[in-house]
Amino acid sequence: MTGTQYLGGAQSAELNDTFHGIDPRNGSEISTAFHEASPSEIDRAVSIAAGAFDSFRATSIETRAKLLDAIAEEILAQGTALTERASAETGHPMPRCEMERDRAANQSRVFAKLLREGSWCDARIDVADPGRTPIPKPDVRSVMRPIGPIAVYGASNFPIAISVLGSDTVSAFASGCPVVIKGHPAHPGTCEIAAGIAYAAIQKVGLSPEIFSLVQGRSHRVGLELVQHPLLAGAAFTGSLGGGRALFDAANNREVPIPFYAEMGSINPIFLLPGALKERAESIANGFVTSLTMGVGQFCTNPGMVVGLESEGLAKFNQTASAAVESWAPATMLHAGIHEAYESGISEREKSDSLELLAKSSSPADPAKSEAAAYLFTTSHKGLMEDDSTLAELFGPVSTVVKCDARAQLLELAERLEGSLSISVHGTEADLAEYGDLIAVLERKAGRLIFNGYPVGIEVNDSIHHGGPYPATAHAHFTSIGTRSISRFVRPVCYQDWPDAALPEALQNANPQGILRIVNGERTRDAVS
Amino acid sequence: MTGTQYLGGAQSAELNDTFHGIDPRNGSEISTAFHEASPSEIDRAVSIAAGAFDSFRATSIETRAKLLDAIAEEILAQGTALTERASAETGHPMPRCEMERDRAANQSRVFAKLLREGSWCDARIDVADPGRTPIPKPDVRSVMRPIGPIAVYGASNFPIAISVLGSDTVSAFASGCPVVIKGHPAHPGTCEIAAGIAYAAIQKVGLSPEIFSLVQGRSHRVGLELVQHPLLAGAAFTGSLGGGRALFDAANNREVPIPFYAEMGSINPIFLLPGALKERAESIANGFVTSLTMGVGQFCTNPGMVVGLESEGLAKFNQTASAAVESWAPATMLHAGIHEAYESGISEREKSDSLELLAKSSSPADPAKSEAAAYLFTTSHKGLMEDDSTLAELFGPVSTVVKCDARAQLLELAERLEGSLSISVHGTEADLAEYGDLIAVLERKAGRLIFNGYPVGIEVNDSIHHGGPYPATAHAHFTSIGTRSISRFVRPVCYQDWPDAALPEALQNANPQGILRIVNGERTRDAVS
Repeated sequence: MTGTQYLGGAQSAELNDTFHGIDPRNGSEISTAFHEASPSEIDRAVSIAAGAFDSFRATSIETRAKLLDAIAEEILAQGTALTERASAETGHPMPRCEMERDRAANQSRVFAKLLREGSWCDARIDVADPGRTPIPKPDVRSVMRPIGPIAVYGASNFPIAISVLGSDTVSAFASGCPVVIKGHPAHPGTCEIAAGIAYAAIQKVGLSPEIFSLVQGRSHRVGLELVQHPLLAGAAFTGSLGGGRALFDAANNREVPIPFYAEMGSINPIFLLPGALKERAESIANGFVTSLTMGVGQFCTNPGMVVGLESEGLAKFNQTASAAVESWAPATMLHAGIHEAYESGISEREKSDSLELLAKSSSPADPAKSEAAAYLFTTSHKGLMEDDSTLAELFGPVSTVVKCDARAQLLELAERLEGSLSISVHGTEADLAEYGDLIAVLERKAGRLIFNGYPVGIEVNDSIHHGGPYPATAHAHFTSIGTRSISRFVRPVCYQDWPDAALPEALQNANPQGILRIVNGERTRDAVS
Repeated sequence: MTGTQYLGGAQSAELNDTFHGIDPRNGSEISTAFHEASPSEIDRAVSIAAGAFDSFRATSIETRAKLLDAIAEEILAQGTALTERASAETGHPMPRCEMERDRAANQSRVFAKLLREGSWCDARIDVADPGRTPIPKPDVRSVMRPIGPIAVYGASNFPIAISVLGSDTVSAFASGCPVVIKGHPAHPGTCEIAAGIAYAAIQKVGLSPEIFSLVQGRSHRVGLELVQHPLLAGAAFTGSLGGGRALFDAANNREVPIPFYAEMGSINPIFLLPGALKERAESIANGFVTSLTMGVGQFCTNPGMVVGLESEGLAKFNQTASAAVESWAPATMLHAGIHEAYESGISEREKSDSLELLAKSSSPADPAKSEAAAYLFTTSHKGLMEDDSTLAELFGPVSTVVKCDARAQLLELAERLEGSLSISVHGTEADLAEYGDLIAVLERKAGRLIFNGYPVGIEVNDSIHHGGPYPATAHAHFTSIGTRSISRFVRPVCYQDWPDAALPEALQNANPQGILRIVNGERTRDAVS
C-alpha cells in the first residue's frame, strides 16, 4: 500500500496533503496516508489515457474480452486483501464484501461474453445502388465506436462492485475506452488494491498500463479538475445528488461539453394497492423492512416511501412493519459523513409537524460506531403536500408511509414524485387492471417497475435498467448496470463508400465475427455479397 | 394563413408584437403578420402536450404508423402551397423545395416502416429462475418507451425536410412523444402550412390534436421559455452553434435538466491524400466545388476546409477549383441575417494576413438580393496554426485549402480539428493503408467518414449517422437523421416480475408483433414459453 497516484502504472505523489481511510466501526485511522492528486498529476492521468486511446481502441474484440476475463480472475485470486480492506474502510461485514467481489468478477465476465457475441455494436449496412436516380446511392455503414478517455467516480456504498473495477470501468474497457479512476475518499486503500488488480490483468494480456490510472483525493478540486480536463471524453458517476449535479454542471459548462452519466438520488416508492393489502399486508411489511434495512439502508434502490389507501390492511402493514423496525439492531454506516447526514435528516423529520414517528429500532445506536437506527414515519397525503421533504432521498434505513384517503390522492401523489430508479407496486392482477391510470403515471417516474417485490437487488444482465428520470440519473436513456451500460461510452461512426478492408471488422462484407447486423433493412448474420 | 399560434389545434394570438416572413430575393415582406408567442401560450402548448402524453404513448404501433403515413400523404397532396411559400421565404428554387417535400414524405414513411417492423424498441427479456441460489432470480424485461413532450427547433436551411414535419418531429411521433414546434422565424408561413398538414394527418387517423402545437416567434425569449418549461421532456435543434449552445445551456441549467439534442456547427474537412491528387486532382476539384456551392453553401455538411500536401497535384487541384469557383454565379442566401454574417466573415478572411484569396465568383453578388459569391482561400499549415478562424464554420459557399509540407503536419492539423459531422478522404487504397494513423485521428473527429466522395447529401436509412463530436452536435451518441434518430426520444423502462398481460406488447411472452428480441442472452423472434 503506497498511498500514491497511479498514472498509467507509474506512481506519483507530488503533494504532501494527505488523508486516511477511517474504520467507521470505531473512528480509527487505517494505516497508509493517501496523497491528494495535484493538478499536474490529474493532467498526466488524462493525457496518458488520451495518448493510449488510438491503440487501445484498435485492439481486437478478443483481446479486450481477455482483459475482462483476466480482471475477473485477478479479483477472485486476491485472497482476502481486497475484501478485508473494503470491510475495514466501509464497515460492510465480510460476507457482503465477498458478495461484492463475486459480483464484480461476474460483471466483468458478462462484458467479456457481450464482446465475444459481438452484436451489441449495432452494425448497420445499406449497400450502394449506382443506378439510383436522380442521384446514385452510396454505400453507407455504421457501427458503435468508443468515445475516448472516461473518468469513473465510484460509489461509496459498493467499494468493490461499483468502484474501481465496477460496471463503469469494465463497460468502458469493453468499448475500448481508457479509464481514469477518481478513487473514493472513504475507501482509498480498497481503490489502490483494485488498481493493482487492474494492472495485473492488463499486464497478463499484454496491454499497455496507460489505459488505466488512479487519482486519489478527498477534496472537490480533484473530481472537478478531472471532469474539466480538455482531453476527457466522458464520465460516469455514482453518488449523491449534490456531488453529481456539481460535476454534471461542470461537464456541461466546459468549452466542449462531455456526457456526464450520473446515478444520483432516488426514493424508490412502494405502492400498496387495496387487493394486496387485504390479502397479505403482513408479509409485504416484513419484506419491505428487510429491503429497507439491508446494507443499513445504504442502497441506491432503498425504499424511502410507502404509499397506500387508508384501510385495515394499511393499519396491519404499519403494525407489522413497526414491529420489524423496532427489532432491527442499529448498525454501522459507511462513514461519519453519511452518518451525520442521516442523523441530521432524522432529527428534521422528528421535528416536522406533518410527520409522525411510527417506530424506531428499540436498541440504541452508538454514535461512536457511526451506527444508524431504523426509523419508520407516517404522514397523510395532506401532510406530504405541506412538507415534501419526504420526497427527497435520505440515505439510510428510514422510510415514510403516506396514507391516502382516496384514489385521486394516489394519482396526485404519483404525479408529484420526482424520478426514481425504481417503483414497486404490490397488488393483485385485478388491482393492476383497476389502477391502470396510476401505473401509467408511475411509468413516467421510474426506470424499473417491480410487481410484488422490493427494489433492493439488481440483476446484471441484458434486460436490467438501473437508471431513471432525474434526479435518479442525469440522462434517463442510459443505465449504469447491465450490458446496456456500454452504450454510454460509444457513438456511431458512419463510413460512406469506405473500402471493405479498411472498415471495422463488424462492418466488413464477410461479417467475420458472425454478428447480427441490419443489412438493407433486414436483420441478418449473413455476409454481404 | 392566420399568423397565430396553434395550441393543440386551437388558434391563439395574445401579443400584438408581430413579424413577417421576408423574401430574401428582394427583401420584401410577405403577407401575413405572425404573432410572437406569449409566455402563457408557450405554457399552454407544453401543458397540452404533457396532458396528451399518457394517451398518445398508449396508442398502438399501427396507429402511429398510420399517422406517419398520413403525414406523408398530406404533404404530397398539398399541391404547391407548401413549396411556393417555402421558396418565397427562403429563396430556395422550386426544384429544391420539391426535393425537400419528397424527402419529408419519404422520411415520414421510413419511420412508419420502422414501427411496423418493430424491433427498433430493443426488447430484452431474462426469465425468472425461482430455484437460483443464494437468491431467486426475478423475471426482468425492458424496452424503449417515449420520454414525454418534445420541443423541436427546425433548421433555417431545410424549411420543409428539417423543420415542422422534419426528421425530429416524425421520429418523436414514432416514439409516442407529443411535439411542440418552435417555428423558424425566417419561414413562419411554411411552418403554419406544415402545421396544417400535421393536423390534417392527425385528424385523418382519429388522434387528438393535442399531440401537436406550433408556437411562433423571432425573439430568443420564445425559444428559451419553451426549453425551460418544467413539463418539457427533451428537445431537438438544428441551427447555429451560438443559438444551439445557449439553449443547450438553458436545458442543462434547469432544476430538472433535459436532453437537448443540437446539431450545430461543422466544417466537414476534405483530406486529399497523395495518390488521389496524383491520379485525379481535377475531377476531385470539380466535385468539391459542386459540393461547396450546392444550396449556396448552406448545408450543415458544407466542406469548409480542404487539406493536402504541397505537390503538383495540389497545385492542379487549386487551379481547377479556382476556375470552378470563379464561374459560379452568386445566388441568394436564406435570409438577410445569414447573408450579413457571411459577408462579415468573408471580409475578416480577406483582411487576414495568414489567408490568401485563391478565387471568387467572377460575377458580382447583389446585396439587395442577399446574394453570396463563392470564395476559395488558401493558407499554410503554419498560417492555420497562427490564425485558426478557418477552423470555425462560416455558413456559405466559402472554403480554405490548407497546404501542408509534411505528413506530420497533416497529423498535427487533424488533431487540431474540432468535431465535424463528416470528414471526407480522397485517396487510393494504398493511401488509406499508408495513412492509417491519420485516419485513426480523423475517426475521433467526425460522425461520418467518406471515401472519395463529398459531404453534402445525407441518405435517410438505418445506417446513416448525422451527428458527430462537439460542436457538430451536443451529444455525439445521437443522430438527427436516419432511423437511429428515434433513440433520442426514448429511454429503457424495465419491468420486474410484471404480469404478462400488463406488459407492453413488445415484452409479452407471445411476442405478438414478431419482433427480434434478446431472450436469455439469445437474439430471437421466438415466443417465450
